[in-house]
Amino acid sequence: MTTVGVELGERRYDVQIGVFSAEDIAGTLAAALGDTTGVAVLVDQTLGACSPLVAPLLEALRARLPRVNRLDLRAGEGSKTLTQIERTTQWMAEHGYDRKASVIGIGGGATGDHSGFAASVYLRGVRFALCPTTLLAMVDASVGGKTAVDLPAGKNQVGAFHQPRAVVADLGFLQTLPARERVAGLAEIVKCGLIADADLLASLERHAGGTIPAAATAEWVAAAVRVKAAVVAEDEREGGRRAILNFGHTIGHALEAASDYGLLHGEAVSLGMVAALRFGVARGVTPPELEVRARGLLGRLGLPVDVERRLDAGVLARIGVDKKRAGTEIRFVLCSAAGQTRLVDVALSDVTAHFLPSGGQGSTIGGGP
Amino acid sequence: MTTVGVELGERRYDVQIGVFSAEDIAGTLAAALGDTTGVAVLVDQTLGACSPLVAPLLEALRARLPRVNRLDLRAGEGSKTLTQIERTTQWMAEHGYDRKASVIGIGGGATGDHSGFAASVYLRGVRFALCPTTLLAMVDASVGGKTAVDLPAGKNQVGAFHQPRAVVADLGFLQTLPARERVAGLAEIVKCGLIADADLLASLERHAGGTIPAAATAEWVAAAVRVKAAVVAEDEREGGRRAILNFGHTIGHALEAASDYGLLHGEAVSLGMVAALRFGVARGVTPPELEVRARGLLGRLGLPVDVERRLDAGVLARIGVDKKRAGTEIRFVLCSAAGQTRLVDVALSDVTAHFLPSGGQGSTIGGGP
Repeated sequence: MTTVGVELGERRYDVQIGVFSAEDIAGTLAAALGDTTGVAVLVDQTLGACSPLVAPLLEALRARLPRVNRLDLRAGEGSKTLTQIERTTQWMAEHGYDRKASVIGIGGGATGDHSGFAASVYLRGVRFALCPTTLLAMVDASVGGKTAVDLPAGKNQVGAFHQPRAVVADLGFLQTLPARERVAGLAEIVKCGLIADADLLASLERHAGGTIPAAATAEWVAAAVRVKAAVVAEDEREGGRRAILNFGHTIGHALEAASDYGLLHGEAVSLGMVAALRFGVARGVTPPELEVRARGLLGRLGLPVDVERRLDAGVLARIGVDKKRAGTEIRFVLCSAAGQTRLVDVALSDVTAHFLPSGGQGSTIGGGP
Repeated sequence: MTTVGVELGERRYDVQIGVFSAEDIAGTLAAALGDTTGVAVLVDQTLGACSPLVAPLLEALRARLPRVNRLDLRAGEGSKTLTQIERTTQWMAEHGYDRKASVIGIGGGATGDHSGFAASVYLRGVRFALCPTTLLAMVDASVGGKTAVDLPAGKNQVGAFHQPRAVVADLGFLQTLPARERVAGLAEIVKCGLIADADLLASLERHAGGTIPAAATAEWVAAAVRVKAAVVAEDEREGGRRAILNFGHTIGHALEAASDYGLLHGEAVSLGMVAALRFGVARGVTPPELEVRARGLLGRLGLPVDVERRLDAGVLARIGVDKKRAGTEIRFVLCSAAGQTRLVDVALSDVTAHFLPSGGQGSTIGGGP
């Protein structure tokens, strides 16, 4: 078991990573939630139906905490709407949860987003803890306190900052994941290597394409969480350094939305990272050999890298509603070396011109062959 | 013109009270919103249709601020649902508002609640300013940063704390209010007198039942805002002293919800204050003559005081989902003298037993004749 402490302004919490018993998890959560008056356990519907670990965990929670009730959420991204937030909060009100109640989310990134946002707005904020069950959520949703739901206009357009009291990442949940989802989760780990941890990148390269030992998975998750925790601790409210965590996400989110969420988040981030590396090479920031190296790693891990054929005017237009945009410029995170980044402010039109040089808008950046 | 400064932890803002030109208001708001990239102006539908002041204000805002667009909200409480928040935030996303955009709410308390909550969650938080147009909103919504929408289960069950950058209370808007609404707004001012300002209470008594001079209205609003600002500055996150602002609201909210919002908020608070005074007398906390005095004042102002005939089991059951409840006890604010309060934790069953002594649950508190 590895514990990564997350230090934030007013509060500190631990992310625990390992293989745990239901009693271990319940004990950790009960300690973190303190004198709570009741616990709303929100479970991803698919996980609830498939995983043998959920029912024993609920039993263990009931043995230690008051008024534990379970609500199954729509599977995956389907839970990330204000309509579903109304369903959850209405259910909580009907069960009489008060201001000292808690929410525990058990599931992937969408469940974490839904649970955290529901906890943030219910009675203007109640306690919150998280059991991420996908590799992606263990890395991406454990740290940062960002919660959100989607609008028809785009992903994560409505949300809040709400820090959990505890995160328990039980690697046992990964056994029940489809292979495609397990692979997708690796994208966020590769991202952490590229932006801040050259050793992690090298470790990924050693195992990619072969059988990945369980111990390696645990260490990768811990390393990625450490990267994220260090960045977030520096910049809780995302003014400066935290922006580097968006590496691959500007175009990744647009691809994800344009696919009508047919692409998994990790797959979209893989493609978005390739796009960001390509753009970085064109701007003279990213060494060409790093783009080659990253494409090779992502491909060997089983992640998609064919971003060129997926980018069209419709996808690029979606960057316009991305929340990172201030005015007509976007802040783009580029990779200047393995484990290093540089932030550049670029005009939206430059991005479009780079990826669609024949779009008639003229290229202001080299252009390439 | 009177300015009341609201001091909060990280930020300070002014509430300006007076009769202003559209240019005055726009200038104040533009200064407070700084380098904003666009302004979403949310207007109560009824106000937008009736008040001659809205269109000139929009013009004045357009002359000073970028990308000013107007969205009319459903009238009154109808805007306070998550469905309506989705409509507003989707409209904002479609208009391309980014993280440096702002929301200005123009309307009564519901508009302030809707606007503030939309600003709080859109892209996880954008700037916010408020032009309250009812007496109630000028007093109640100007200070505190509480924003919320309703659930089927109860009022204000979902929300956030989000402080405005500026509040401009233009008394000119009061001219277009129906008499019933103007009267209802006085309830919150009476509340401020009862809990913290004996001089304000005496001033109200001097004018009640006669014609109220405009200068008196302005001074009452300023006095009430000062009371609220002082309390909130002491306790931004409502742990202790801020609870006194809930005087009259525990039962008031239940009455308001039970009336299906046929009662105006101020009318419900008037009734809730009478109930709290009666309960305080029964507990030996409130001097009986203060109950008589307050009933007389509220009645002469034109506010309802006949709470006894309005309380039934259905109304009292609604207190059970009130967000102030922690466990099975509620924190009740009682008035111990003019301008003074005492907080008492009472069992829900005691409240029910007091107001429905024949309800078969037994009275544990005196009971009364």
